[in-house]
Amino acid sequence: MKEIDKMLAGMLYQASDETLSKMRDRAKNLMYDYNMLRPTDHKNKQDILKKLLGSMGEDVHINQPFYVDYGVHIFIGDHFFSNFDLTILDVSKVTIGNHVMFGPKVSLLTATHPLDKTIRNEQYEYGLPITIKDNVWLGANVVINPGVTIGEGVVVGSGSVVTKDLPDHTLCYGNPCKVIRKINEEDKKIWEEKKKLSLNI
Amino acid sequence: MKEIDKMLAGMLYQASDETLSKMRDRAKNLMYDYNMLRPTDHKNKQDILKKLLGSMGEDVHINQPFYVDYGVHIFIGDHFFSNFDLTILDVSKVTIGNHVMFGPKVSLLTATHPLDKTIRNEQYEYGLPITIKDNVWLGANVVINPGVTIGEGVVVGSGSVVTKDLPDHTLCYGNPCKVIRKINEEDKKIWEEKKKLSLNI
Amino acid sequence: MKEIDKMLAGMLYQASDETLSKMRDRAKNLMYDYNMLRPTDHKNKQDILKKLLGSMGEDVHINQPFYVDYGVHIFIGDHFFSNFDLTILDVSKVTIGNHVMFGPKVSLLTATHPLDKTIRNEQYEYGLPITIKDNVWLGANVVINPGVTIGEGVVVGSGSVVTKDLPDHTLCYGNPCKVIRKINEEDKKIWEEKKKLSLNI
Repeated sequence: MKEIDKMLAGMLYQASDETLSKMRDRAKNLMYDYNMLRPTDHKNKQDILKKLLGSMGEDVHINQPFYVDYGVHIFIGDHFFSNFDLTILDVSKVTIGNHVMFGPKVSLLTATHPLDKTIRNEQYEYGLPITIKDNVWLGANVVINPGVTIGEGVVVGSGSVVTKDLPDHTLCYGNPCKVIRKINEEDKKIWEEKKKLSLNI
Repeated sequence: MKEIDKMLAGMLYQASDETLSKMRDRAKNLMYDYNMLRPTDHKNKQDILKKLLGSMGEDVHINQPFYVDYGVHIFIGDHFFSNFDLTILDVSKVTIGNHVMFGPKVSLLTATHPLDKTIRNEQYEYGLPITIKDNVWLGANVVINPGVTIGEGVVVGSGSVVTKDLPDHTLCYGNPCKVIRKINEEDKKIWEEKKKLSLNI
Repeated sequence: MKEIDKMLAGMLYQASDETLSKMRDRAKNLMYDYNMLRPTDHKNKQDILKKLLGSMGEDVHINQPFYVDYGVHIFIGDHFFSNFDLTILDVSKVTIGNHVMFGPKVSLLTATHPLDKTIRNEQYEYGLPITIKDNVWLGANVVINPGVTIGEGVVVGSGSVVTKDLPDHTLCYGNPCKVIRKINEEDKKIWEEKKKLSLNI
């Protein structure tokens, strides 16, 4: 198997591999170009995102600065917004659904290393995929660890460190991040009331 | 009511509103200019801050990079210092007193979203004001959530996530941030001794 | 004693001191030059690091952006890698051993301030040294507080806030960061198996 195939299969691999190094250099140069553009240069920002990412849907907005390892392993759905300073280490696949929102300084980390120092120092590393399902909102400074899936409609509070999967339709926060409660019909009523108030004023 | 008035009143509003979009574009361009200046170009840094912020007092220093949403809703007193990478989402008013210090990577987040995904996906959002009173010191990587007031003389430890108001003259830390103890006369004596030591050596 | 000597001795000092201000300006300009280089401009990146840091060994890689106070109080061993957005406030000595790895957004903070607001507002501050021993891996968004020593072979989980020394060969995480367990021979076997699997496929 090639190093890239081992990497994407979640096995130990060598990041110093020539193909992988070239892929990272390409991504870092595109990332640099992206981060140096004027924030209002929407046309060029979109063009670079299209080259950088594995795929992206309609209405994708990522506030600068934005940092990635490869870019091409990131797959984003429609109606995505990330505020400033998103970091995605995409040595494994990162899948983001539709209608997802990130606050500033969110980190999605698929990359990790052996706990044993000898193997770690031999430059072996590995990754585990991250999945963010539809309608998720991650607050500011949220860290998502390797292998985690964030369920549909989940809201994660600011500063949370997510080490395990989070179930659909829940409000979660903390370090480590825990499920606080279900998001329910009562929440829906409260927000519909607030929407009416906003429309009628 | 206009969207900007709803926004500043803490009601649901549409950020895609034309006036608000133009205000954000203006802020992001000024922010970009600020972040691209040489760190030692104090004259131009001060000039941009004056254009960007709602108001600022004497002796205000903000290390680059610095990120804001609008800028004009940020009101800073005298003798303010923030280290690298301050993020202020100022969809509501952010008021910072005199003699305030921030470590690197502090985030003040007035912006928030409905818990209900349907209303959230219709792009309704809202904000709640943040107030930092006089003589406050926030450590590195501190996150302040919407609606929070930090009392006079409060010290917040690094990496804290502040979800509730913090009372005057207290040392606080943790995620979530909790009051650890009062800062008292004994602390004053300890530091006066250390000051004497420093002056007499 | 000069202010720089007080600073390095862990005593209260005045950062506005002319010598110290010049040293910080020099560092911030080098830092700016470093951060503005293309990520693939390895030659110039290495040249700036050599000027900026107190010392560095062989095979040192620091992904941009990188932020420091002085630079010259940072001493890095061989085979160091830091991912994006490392912040080192080096008002005291920061010593990093061999074979050390940092995830993105790590902060090493030697700088701190008096708890008493009067002395703090008179601009007195102080620092305590940070030591990172050999074979350490710090996860993403880890904060290291002033005066902390990270023991040999320690692994710190993402999002941890380290307020106390961590003993050799331990896995640690949390806010505040706690020792979770020893890293042991069993871990070594597990990772040697995974390495064999990777080599034989």
